[in-house]
Amino acid sequence: MPKEQTPEAVLRRLPRYYRLLEGLKNSGVVRVSSRELAEQLGFTASQIRQDLNRYGGFGQQGYGYNVAQLQGEIARILGLQTRRTAILLGAGNLGRAVAGTLFAAADGFELLGIFDRKESLTGQLIRKLPIRHIDGLDEFCREYRPQVAVLCLPGETARAITPSLAALGVRALWNFSAYDPSADFPSLAVENVRLGDSLLTLSYKLSHQKEERL
Amino acid sequence: MPKEQTPEAVLRRLPRYYRLLEGLKNSGVVRVSSRELAEQLGFTASQIRQDLNRYGGFGQQGYGYNVAQLQGEIARILGLQTRRTAILLGAGNLGRAVAGTLFAAADGFELLGIFDRKESLTGQLIRKLPIRHIDGLDEFCREYRPQVAVLCLPGETARAITPSLAALGVRALWNFSAYDPSADFPSLAVENVRLGDSLLTLSYKLSHQKEERL
Repeated sequence: MPKEQTPEAVLRRLPRYYRLLEGLKNSGVVRVSSRELAEQLGFTASQIRQDLNRYGGFGQQGYGYNVAQLQGEIARILGLQTRRTAILLGAGNLGRAVAGTLFAAADGFELLGIFDRKESLTGQLIRKLPIRHIDGLDEFCREYRPQVAVLCLPGETARAITPSLAALGVRALWNFSAYDPSADFPSLAVENVRLGDSLLTLSYKLSHQKEERL
Repeated sequence: MPKEQTPEAVLRRLPRYYRLLEGLKNSGVVRVSSRELAEQLGFTASQIRQDLNRYGGFGQQGYGYNVAQLQGEIARILGLQTRRTAILLGAGNLGRAVAGTLFAAADGFELLGIFDRKESLTGQLIRKLPIRHIDGLDEFCREYRPQVAVLCLPGETARAITPSLAALGVRALWNFSAYDPSADFPSLAVENVRLGDSLLTLSYKLSHQKEERL
């Protein structure tokens, strides 16, 4: 059990551990050392031991970690044992791509509905889910009580709709918009995906790249 | 000037500073305190002072930071003064959404070409750029020498194409695929965007949310 809240940096690494261990488990690997995990992930072995020790340290000196046990424990820490229901707002290219990620995830998330304001999209299918008009959002939420809303909307539209979502019982936002709801809605769980910021980070990395070739 | 390499956590905050300062500058704000930045960003004021002191500390006790000067310095640190040329591989929903981000960015990135293996897409326009068939990639790269490749491809396709990209002089990857090129190509600058991992992070946040309502 974690003794305190997981720091942001550790939290960013947990999904990496989870995915790798899932792959190892599916390949029939029973035990893995922190050094082997380090080679696959590009973190140091001591970093990995330090991270995993937060959760009780499932490793045995010289024997490594039990893959299935560690993967199960990280799944529990990530909350993947609980089924989550989600709606997605905005059925443009981004919304469709993100819907694909949700369908592929199968880590406890279930997409219940997709909404867009464009009437020409209403009824179109994404996988087997029909796009609904945004006017039906309130009624849908009152009936199906989705816990998560995925915002694939422009910033101003996201800002305008977030109060309704909170009032309708949505507890978490997977937010791809330029609006950051976390300050206005401290009780919501918010995960912001900022593609523009990621591009700036790439620019930094490119500028500070080792100049191995001239 | 930074004395040493920027840690990953600081690097993730730099784009946030940059965007906020850009907004302030465009609104005509001349000076800003670390406390005001903290309120907008949700970091602590001391965190912000510590981050910015890495780069010489442009603030004056009691006077705050000069907005334009600080923004310019962060732009320099992020390498935004340099024009970057990019190609995008994979013109599905994700590729189209990411192309939109690149077009909107205007922070020194220029998208030169979009490629897909689907012949039915060849010639379709995204904004004013025609989708090209992937068979023309080598010739295009030899002529235009793009520095950045954006991988909106399945993992196995991304893995298969990365050696060619490196051989063709591409120096950086903005990678949306499940394949992580950083271990195989240490000389490339790689920025991975892992949407699936972001979803797991949301699951964690939702599980550890303060239970303010029952």
